[in-house]
Amino acid sequence: MEIIRSVAAMRAWRRQAGKLAFVPTMGNLHEGHLALVEAAHQHADKVVVSIFVNRLQFGQGEDFDAYPRTFESDCAKLEAAGVDALFFPTEQELYPRVKQDFNVEPPHIQDELCGAFRPGHFRGVATVVSKLFNIVQPDVACFGKKDFQQLHVIKAMVDDLNIPVEVIPVDTGRAADGLALSSRNGYLTAEERAEAPRLYRNLSAMRAALLAGDSDYATLEANASADLQQAGWVVDYVEVRQADTLEVAHAGEKRLVVLAAARLGRTRLIDNVEVSR
Amino acid sequence: MEIIRSVAAMRAWRRQAGKLAFVPTMGNLHEGHLALVEAAHQHADKVVVSIFVNRLQFGQGEDFDAYPRTFESDCAKLEAAGVDALFFPTEQELYPRVKQDFNVEPPHIQDELCGAFRPGHFRGVATVVSKLFNIVQPDVACFGKKDFQQLHVIKAMVDDLNIPVEVIPVDTGRAADGLALSSRNGYLTAEERAEAPRLYRNLSAMRAALLAGDSDYATLEANASADLQQAGWVVDYVEVRQADTLEVAHAGEKRLVVLAAARLGRTRLIDNVEVSR
Repeated sequence: MEIIRSVAAMRAWRRQAGKLAFVPTMGNLHEGHLALVEAAHQHADKVVVSIFVNRLQFGQGEDFDAYPRTFESDCAKLEAAGVDALFFPTEQELYPRVKQDFNVEPPHIQDELCGAFRPGHFRGVATVVSKLFNIVQPDVACFGKKDFQQLHVIKAMVDDLNIPVEVIPVDTGRAADGLALSSRNGYLTAEERAEAPRLYRNLSAMRAALLAGDSDYATLEANASADLQQAGWVVDYVEVRQADTLEVAHAGEKRLVVLAAARLGRTRLIDNVEVSR
Repeated sequence: MEIIRSVAAMRAWRRQAGKLAFVPTMGNLHEGHLALVEAAHQHADKVVVSIFVNRLQFGQGEDFDAYPRTFESDCAKLEAAGVDALFFPTEQELYPRVKQDFNVEPPHIQDELCGAFRPGHFRGVATVVSKLFNIVQPDVACFGKKDFQQLHVIKAMVDDLNIPVEVIPVDTGRAADGLALSSRNGYLTAEERAEAPRLYRNLSAMRAALLAGDSDYATLEANASADLQQAGWVVDYVEVRQADTLEVAHAGEKRLVVLAAARLGRTRLIDNVEVSR
């Protein structure tokens, strides 16, 4: 596996790569990332992964500094997964003037759901993904459904700005007890880790109710929030939305997604389930 | 010359084009555009020109509807200039949802100079050029220096968002009396057309003074504005700026540009001169 640190070297490598699939990550890789790599292999001749903890998508007081950096073990995992190249730029390489002057500005969805609690987050995501796409110039790019709103924003951006990249959604990887795999799970104490699957249990219960025909979204949302709060969580949101547009869902909607974000101690966890009925 | 109307057909054509130069235009082509085409031929195997009057970069009350559409004569000129393909999309093709949801947001320079008089203009330019670059995927793209602030915004955007396109600036084409070539010159009455070269005469006089060592920018600006106003112009701005950054120029600055925008009757004209001293 080639380790590439500069934009110029990445572009040079890309020119000889043939059909190329790309998996952008912030590192600290787990099985969920490796499922993205596996999907990438199915769509292209070569696979490039990037590791870049993108300051632009972290807010004031968020965990940019604490975010786990595990370069050596990440490399070993990517090597074993048959990745052809790792793009590992410095901040100086991606943000040479420190400040990013031009930003890709998403529409109102950037201020809803996670965006309501993380101002500027999706602008930072859209902008860095645009930059990475322009540098790597992949044919396809794989993103996990665990970050469902992020996936939605990137798909919509690619479509709206005519970006010549095919976006491949990949199912959320889960621990045996249902907890969605996430780098931030590493922040949990043993006690919190035991409690954490409650988030997915609530989403699964909501999915069952929706499949059974319940369309009283507000009550379902309130019940899940109450269950989490009683167990000591601080709930940012639990919401039923339209799966394809992420707009607010109306009763009788056929393709739904239930999204939630809640904090357990100092750790903010997100998860979602899709429902087709 | 191939005439291409859809994004999909443009992408298919691009794949077999080799090294490709791109000249985005709004049509109503004149010698200034043909100089861009000539520069394009010097940088690539094939040349593609686009004609698209981009609603996004026109403000309320501006001349979007009146903007001259001269498709047949434009085609003849491009054919004669050896252009390989013309990309001529409908609004529906570039803005299928009517509203553009994701925008490329330029930094503060978008609110200065022409931007102060045309709110949203440079956002619209940056966004449509991003879209066109993503569709055409050229190796190089040629832009005229007549729209100096636009050229600056596009160069800065390409650099800041790592867009894999080389931007080639091309000198302003001028009539024998000095008037910068522009589609909007067609709006001028015979009397206004005779008066119009005053704009370039004032800029040339400022250049001479700057080259002679004058660094009292404010007085030079005020004198030029006064001369135009006395001749019946409404002056939007006359400003000395740093040529490379478009930031406000300080005394002693070596690479300058003098930019002006002023209205003669219903027609808004812009022009600029560079000064290296």
